Amino acid sequence: MNSGMDGAETSPLNGAQSLVRTLSGAGVDTCFANPGTSEMHFVAALDSEPGIRPILGLFEGAVTGMADGYGRMAGKPAATLLHLGPGLANGLANLHNARRAATPIVNIVGDHATYHAQYDAPLASDVAGFARPVSGWVHASMSSRDVAADGARAVAAALAPPGQIATLILPADTAWNPAEGPAPALPRPQPAAVSDAAVDRAAKALRSGKTAAILMRGAALQPEGLSLAGRIAGATGARLLCDTFAPRVARGAGRVAVERIPYFAEQMVEFLAPLEVLVLVGAKPPVAFFAYPDKPSWGLPEGCRVLHLAHPHEDAPSALAALAEALNAPKTGLTPTALERPDSPSGRFNHFSIGQIIGRRLPEGAIVSDEGATSGGGTLAATITGPPHDWLSLTGGSIGQGVPLATGAAVGSPGRKVVCLQGDGGAMYTLQALWTQAREKLDVTTVIFANRAYAILNVELSRVGALNVGPKALSMLDLRNPDLDFVKLAEGMGVEASRAETLEDFDAQFSAAMDQTGPRLIEVVL
Amino acid sequence: MNSGMDGAETSPLNGAQSLVRTLSGAGVDTCFANPGTSEMHFVAALDSEPGIRPILGLFEGAVTGMADGYGRMAGKPAATLLHLGPGLANGLANLHNARRAATPIVNIVGDHATYHAQYDAPLASDVAGFARPVSGWVHASMSSRDVAADGARAVAAALAPPGQIATLILPADTAWNPAEGPAPALPRPQPAAVSDAAVDRAAKALRSGKTAAILMRGAALQPEGLSLAGRIAGATGARLLCDTFAPRVARGAGRVAVERIPYFAEQMVEFLAPLEVLVLVGAKPPVAFFAYPDKPSWGLPEGCRVLHLAHPHEDAPSALAALAEALNAPKTGLTPTALERPDSPSGRFNHFSIGQIIGRRLPEGAIVSDEGATSGGGTLAATITGPPHDWLSLTGGSIGQGVPLATGAAVGSPGRKVVCLQGDGGAMYTLQALWTQAREKLDVTTVIFANRAYAILNVELSRVGALNVGPKALSMLDLRNPDLDFVKLAEGMGVEASRAETLEDFDAQFSAAMDQTGPRLIEVVL
Repeated sequence: MNSGMDGAETSPLNGAQSLVRTLSGAGVDTCFANPGTSEMHFVAALDSEPGIRPILGLFEGAVTGMADGYGRMAGKPAATLLHLGPGLANGLANLHNARRAATPIVNIVGDHATYHAQYDAPLASDVAGFARPVSGWVHASMSSRDVAADGARAVAAALAPPGQIATLILPADTAWNPAEGPAPALPRPQPAAVSDAAVDRAAKALRSGKTAAILMRGAALQPEGLSLAGRIAGATGARLLCDTFAPRVARGAGRVAVERIPYFAEQMVEFLAPLEVLVLVGAKPPVAFFAYPDKPSWGLPEGCRVLHLAHPHEDAPSALAALAEALNAPKTGLTPTALERPDSPSGRFNHFSIGQIIGRRLPEGAIVSDEGATSGGGTLAATITGPPHDWLSLTGGSIGQGVPLATGAAVGSPGRKVVCLQGDGGAMYTLQALWTQAREKLDVTTVIFANRAYAILNVELSRVGALNVGPKALSMLDLRNPDLDFVKLAEGMGVEASRAETLEDFDAQFSAAMDQTGPRLIEVVL
Repeated sequence: MNSGMDGAETSPLNGAQSLVRTLSGAGVDTCFANPGTSEMHFVAALDSEPGIRPILGLFEGAVTGMADGYGRMAGKPAATLLHLGPGLANGLANLHNARRAATPIVNIVGDHATYHAQYDAPLASDVAGFARPVSGWVHASMSSRDVAADGARAVAAALAPPGQIATLILPADTAWNPAEGPAPALPRPQPAAVSDAAVDRAAKALRSGKTAAILMRGAALQPEGLSLAGRIAGATGARLLCDTFAPRVARGAGRVAVERIPYFAEQMVEFLAPLEVLVLVGAKPPVAFFAYPDKPSWGLPEGCRVLHLAHPHEDAPSALAALAEALNAPKTGLTPTALERPDSPSGRFNHFSIGQIIGRRLPEGAIVSDEGATSGGGTLAATITGPPHDWLSLTGGSIGQGVPLATGAAVGSPGRKVVCLQGDGGAMYTLQALWTQAREKLDVTTVIFANRAYAILNVELSRVGALNVGPKALSMLDLRNPDLDFVKLAEGMGVEASRAETLEDFDAQFSAAMDQTGPRLIEVVL
C-alpha cells in the first residue's frame, strides 16, 4: 500500500509508545524509573517523547518515595517504572506512605509477556497481589491495543480525589506488540461538593459555644484553606489543628498557623481533652500511632462530638468558604503569622539549637521533608514563624521516606530549596536517593541527625512495658558498633558532605548550603 | 497461693517470651531483625533466651536476604523480625528470591494490637496481603495464649520439604499479654519417599539409549546426591545438569561436576537441543528467564520426554540411590573433579582474568554468593576445578540478594570464608548488609564489579528488539554521572575497602583478604 501521499510514512506505534504518549498527553511529565529487561520497550519509548523526563533511581524504594514527593508538590501524578513483582515490592513501603498521603501516583510495573506467564520463570510472581494493599486501582493490560486506554484510565484513577495510587501492570508483549495510537486523556476527576446540610451542621456546632476545633488535612492546609479556616476560627474561637503527620502543610509568615497534634498517645489525649466538638475537614478522627498497654487508642475525650465538614474526597476549600459565609465570618480572621526568625542559639548542641539555626537560615519558599523522628521537633518549633514554606511529614510511619521525598519534591518544585531533616536510622533505608540528587543536580540539603540509635525505640521500649531488658535487646536499638559515616556514604554517591559537631560548625555549613544550589549533606553528630 | 515449695517462683510468661522459647526449642538459633515499636516485647524476650542470637540489619531487604543465606547453608530456618506491613514489604524482594530457593524462613511480623486495628492508624496495612505472594504459610495470632503453638507450627511449616517461607503475624497485644508457656516443637517434616514406579520409569528411560540428561536442584546438588548422580551418569551416559540459578551447588575438587544451563534463551535452547530424555530431580523443566519476541520460552526440544524422578518435596538423595541400584550402577561412576587451580592470568583486566585470580586464591570450604550478573561468569568458570566450595545463585532474579546472602551464609557457616561476587547495580539495592558484616565481624570478602552500568540491560535492550534508542533511554541503564565510590560506601559502614584497577592490584588485595578474617570489600573498576 502506498502511504506516501502526504510525504509521511505510516509508522505504527508499539504498545509502549502508545502508553508513553498517552501518559504525556494526560499531563504526566516525569517518570521515576528503575527498569529491567521487561521494561526495555517502555524505556526506548521514553526517548521519543520529549514531554516526559525520565529520572533514574538506584533502588525502587527511592523511586516510589520520589514519586510521592513529586506528587505532593506538583499536585499531579508522576509515573514510576518498576521491574516485575520484586521491583514493585521494593517500592511498597514508600507507596504505603504515599497512600497515607493520598498522593497521586501512576505505577507502571513491567511483567513477563502474557504467553510467558505459564512457565513460572524465576522472576514470576503475583504482581497484582503485591500491588493491592497500596493501590486504589490495579489493572493488568492484556493486549498492546488496550495499553493506551488503560494508561489514560490509570492517570484518571490516580487523580480521583483526594489522590491515590494506580498500578498498571504491563506484560512485555503488550509493550512490544503493535498499538493503534495514544488514547485521549480522560477528564480530570473533581472533588465532590459538600452538601449545604454538612455546612449548616458545622456552623451550628461551632456557634454552640462549646469548645471546638477544626482538624484539617489535604487541600485545606494550603494557604487558601488556611485563610478561610482563620476566618472561621476568628469568628467562632475554634482551634485549628492538623495531624502529627499531615502530608503537606503551608507554614510560616503570612499563613494562618495550625496546631499540630502531638505524637505520643498520652500527650495527644491531654492535648485534645478540652474538646467538645471536632469538625473534620479532609481528616479522620485522631488515634494513637501505636497501641500501648493500658493507654487509649482513641484520641478524643468521651462525649466529644465529631462532624465531617468535608470528607477526604470532597472539596475542602469550597466547604470552608461556605462555612465562613454561613457564619458571616469577617474577612479578617486570625492574624496570619508574622515573620520572626529565632535568636541565635547558644548552649548545647542538640536538635533544638540546630532547629534554631535552620529557622534563622531557612530561605523563603523552602520545602522541608521531615523524617527527623526524635530530632525533628526542634526545627518544627523554630520555623513556625519563619518565612513561608511547606512542611512534608512521614505520613505512613514507614521510615526511609525522608531522602527520596525530598528528592522528588525538588523535581516537582524547581527553584525552591528543599531541606531534608533525616534521622540516621531511617536514612539507611533509602539513602540511594542521594545519587539521584547528584545526577539531577537537585537543590536539596540533607541534615542527618546522627544520634546513632533507633532513638524512638529506646523511648518506646519502656512505654510499651518491656522492662528489665539487657544488652542483647538494647543492641537491637543501637546503631553504634560500628558508627556510620554519612560523609563517606554521601560522597560515595557523589554528594558533597560535611560533619558538624558544634553549633559553629553547623551554622557555617548550613549557611553555606543555603547560599549554594545543588545537593549537599550535613551529618550532625548528636 | 504459696508457690515457694520448691524454692522457685511462678513467673508467668508473656506471649513474646512463650514464642521466643518455642522458636528456640524448635531449633531456631538466629533471628535477623529490624524491629520497631510493635516488636519491643519480642526484642525484650530475646534477652532472656540464650539459645537465639539476634542480628540487626539496617534495612529489611538485608534482613530477609541474610535469612536466605543462613537457611541455604544451615538447612534450617532463621527467624526474621520485621515491623508491620511496610517492614515486611521492604523484605519481600529477597523473600521472593528465598521462595525460589525453597529456603526455610520463619518471618515474625509485628502488627498493631488486635484492638487497635479498627482505628486504621498510619502504619496499619494488609500485612497478610503483603505476605501471601511469597509465603507458603501465613497466620496471624489472635491471642497471647496461642502464640507459642502458632510459632511451633510456623517452624514446622518452614521446614515442609523442600523448605518454604512461613509468616507469623504477631499483634502487639499477643506479645505483651500473658501466655501459658512455650509449645513443644512439632516433628520435623520429612521429604516424601519416591515410588518404585518413578524409579523404574527413570531407569528405563536412561537405559533406552536415547540422549538423556538429569536436571537436579536442591538436596541432589550436595555431595552425596552428586556422587549418586555420578554413578548413574557413569552407567548410562546421561549428562548431569543444574539450573542457571540453582540455590546451592557443591562444586570443586572431590565433587562430581554438573553442567549449568546457560542464561540466555537461545543459548539454553542450543545447549538442550540434543536431549531426547530429561529426568528431573527436585527441578522443573528449564524455561527462558525472560520472553523475547520470536524466541522460545520452553527450553527443551520438541519431543523431548520429561520424567520426574523426584519432585521438589520428595527425597532426592534416596531416589538417586534407588535409581543407581535399579541401574546396577558401579560404585565408581564419573570421576570426581581433580583439583586444578587456574594459571596466573595475564592480559586484560576483566571478569575472566579476575575470575582466574579468585580461582587461584579461593580457600577450601569457601562459599560463593554470586550476583556478579554479566561479570560472574569468569569466576564460575575458573573455580569449577578449584577446592571444594558451595556456590549460591540469584534464584529469583531480584537483584540485591548478593551482599545480604553472603552475610547470612557467613552467620550460618562459621569458620568458612564467604566470597561475594556482586555487580554494582545490584549492590546498591541492599548494601546496608555490609554494616551487619562489620558489626558481627563476619568473614566475607565482597568483590564489586563496577562496570558502572546495568550492563545486562544494555545487552537486553537490543535482544528484546528495542532499537534506535537515544541518550535519554540509554541514561536509564547507566550508572555513571556520578560514579559510585564503593570504597567510601563500604568505609561509611565500617568495612575495610580498596579499589583495584589492575590485575596486580586485585591479586594483592584479594590475596590479603583471603589471608585475613573479617569483612573486606574490593571495588573492581572495569
